[in-house]
Amino acid sequence: MKFDKPYLNIADSHKNTNMYYLSGMLVPDPFIYFHDGNEAMLCLSALEVGRARKESRVSNIYSYEDWGFSDFAKQHGKDAFLQMIIHQLKQRKISTIVMPADTHFGFVEKLNKAKINVEVADSLVEKARRTKTDPEIANISESQAVTGGAMSLIKDILGQAVINKNHMLYIDGEPLTSEYLQGKVAAYMIERGCFCDGLIIAGGLQGADPHSHGHGHLPAYHPIVCDIFPIHMRNRYYSDMTRTFVKGNLSKVAHGEELMRMYDTVAKAQDAAFKIIKAGVSVRDVHNAVCDTIEFAGYYTLRNGRPPDDKPAMIHSTGHGIGLDVHEAPSVSSNDFILEAGNVITVEPGLYHPDWGGIRIEDMVVVRDEGHTNLTNHERIFVVE
Amino acid sequence: MKFDKPYLNIADSHKNTNMYYLSGMLVPDPFIYFHDGNEAMLCLSALEVGRARKESRVSNIYSYEDWGFSDFAKQHGKDAFLQMIIHQLKQRKISTIVMPADTHFGFVEKLNKAKINVEVADSLVEKARRTKTDPEIANISESQAVTGGAMSLIKDILGQAVINKNHMLYIDGEPLTSEYLQGKVAAYMIERGCFCDGLIIAGGLQGADPHSHGHGHLPAYHPIVCDIFPIHMRNRYYSDMTRTFVKGNLSKVAHGEELMRMYDTVAKAQDAAFKIIKAGVSVRDVHNAVCDTIEFAGYYTLRNGRPPDDKPAMIHSTGHGIGLDVHEAPSVSSNDFILEAGNVITVEPGLYHPDWGGIRIEDMVVVRDEGHTNLTNHERIFVVE
Repeated sequence: MKFDKPYLNIADSHKNTNMYYLSGMLVPDPFIYFHDGNEAMLCLSALEVGRARKESRVSNIYSYEDWGFSDFAKQHGKDAFLQMIIHQLKQRKISTIVMPADTHFGFVEKLNKAKINVEVADSLVEKARRTKTDPEIANISESQAVTGGAMSLIKDILGQAVINKNHMLYIDGEPLTSEYLQGKVAAYMIERGCFCDGLIIAGGLQGADPHSHGHGHLPAYHPIVCDIFPIHMRNRYYSDMTRTFVKGNLSKVAHGEELMRMYDTVAKAQDAAFKIIKAGVSVRDVHNAVCDTIEFAGYYTLRNGRPPDDKPAMIHSTGHGIGLDVHEAPSVSSNDFILEAGNVITVEPGLYHPDWGGIRIEDMVVVRDEGHTNLTNHERIFVVE
Repeated sequence: MKFDKPYLNIADSHKNTNMYYLSGMLVPDPFIYFHDGNEAMLCLSALEVGRARKESRVSNIYSYEDWGFSDFAKQHGKDAFLQMIIHQLKQRKISTIVMPADTHFGFVEKLNKAKINVEVADSLVEKARRTKTDPEIANISESQAVTGGAMSLIKDILGQAVINKNHMLYIDGEPLTSEYLQGKVAAYMIERGCFCDGLIIAGGLQGADPHSHGHGHLPAYHPIVCDIFPIHMRNRYYSDMTRTFVKGNLSKVAHGEELMRMYDTVAKAQDAAFKIIKAGVSVRDVHNAVCDTIEFAGYYTLRNGRPPDDKPAMIHSTGHGIGLDVHEAPSVSSNDFILEAGNVITVEPGLYHPDWGGIRIEDMVVVRDEGHTNLTNHERIFVVE
């Protein structure tokens, strides 16, 4: 990445995905990324220097020792790290430095005291990350391919499941549970290098809570929300897909017709978004296209305040950017962001019924100058008989 | 947790483990934990309120709407969140608030402008987290039990492996690789609810780099460093264990004797730490006990500066605290921290040979008033024949 002004980031790169984006290597403990306005450099523990030379995308690699850490430790004790940084900045005659917003504010105060002015980076890296390169899109697609396979696995198991007289699901004579499907999906994905922390397989009323993971015996004739968002452990990119399945012939139950109408509405809302997504369109317009469709069918959204608790409603935004984080810029909601070619976003309308549960459909698309490319390799299907 | 002064934390609780510790629930997007000095409360998106009432350990739950977010949005646009917070503070006549060090410094500046003084929390939550309760220790042990099982699995596979004439390992006629073992371990652990991002199975020279994950065909007669540190996905606690195995009878190779001497030295260094670990002892003394043993055997440590590149050396500290994060306080290194009953720490001396690779042994112990409890359920074994 290019920086016009000197830029400094201090974090680990496992949790801090900006550091991973900048350094191209996974380091479990905080280290230094520094761009002096001309070139980037890393400064790390001696332990990581060898690996940094091999794995990092930055070519200037220093150890803390190279920057004189031991001497600062002797002189300044606990403030050694701070003094080492200040020394580097002063040596380069840098009096103003850009740092990310999540830099420890106590550290910023100490830099200020040393007459170094710190400016908030104002999402510099987030902005760069928003526009995906082709290799990044390939990484996301690789992750989404595994997610699609996992979704097919769920559909197949539901296909094999049996409905008992109490309208509950059984597989091989045992109750079919959220946990059983979560275990199957996790095993399928880990074999393929993917991992999803908190995947959602939520049946019936549990699915009415969009972030409930789901547990226990799964019902027939009620929607089962399956939301899978794994990280691809090698390439580090996330994917995200939701399908909602219902097991059983809906004509056999009184609420079947209304469930079908809800599903069709959600599918139409997603289509309404697909129809307009391209570079130059605002995310507000995309979200409005979804909400218009939902409201036109007689359901509630959040656009006019909190909906009544006893009515089916869409209680979240349309989607989010995705990449090295499962939720990143841009948010697809009521805001003024204008879509750019290379944004990767989810489109995930949902309706949540207080008696029967949730229905959500989520695809992931790349925004293009003309339209978009859908990265989701799984059919939209609701009823599994 | 109790706070004497008003305390405010704004973060998600997937990545920010302090927020998980405080709230007791996993939320993928930033939310508010606020303690007014008397009682704690959460404020979250409407989407999370229902789940918060069920899952959180905090009993006062508010939605952003309850705090008037929509009205602030109409009046203040992008600053709505900030203004909502300021309003809550002013309503409670709070002019000084404690916030964690990783609070966005731009946000702190804006609070300062609104005449709200922000003090750095100075590791309040980290200090609380350092001392584990019995249920937390049970969680860590549950995680470590799975890790121990995974280690046995590796040992069994190495036991079955065959050495060919080029001193490489084969299993079922195929090359035995780091990736094969990593896949087996990942599958074993995911079935038991555990996940390790970046587990290390590094053979030969790869093991000389303590954070190299390892890849490719594994050698006989050379150490294979196996470092497994999974999160238990349900209980959210980490465990950490390292064993180093060598496949083959070391008397058959010229360097075998030196490898054995290195292994014995590392084991003795770990025993030297075990001998003194108890509440009231400084981590510096523990680290020195390890380094003394290593140096007494004629190997290098980092205590006297960077060791020569061509000599076997211990190039890291003795260990780290572990809990909701894989690395947390206290660090077991050259610092003045005095061990307290309830600290859970790793003890992981290692020696890294520039020609033959690394040898590291890591156990995890709970510090007690008298001595410690080792949570590691796996024998110390080196040679697998």
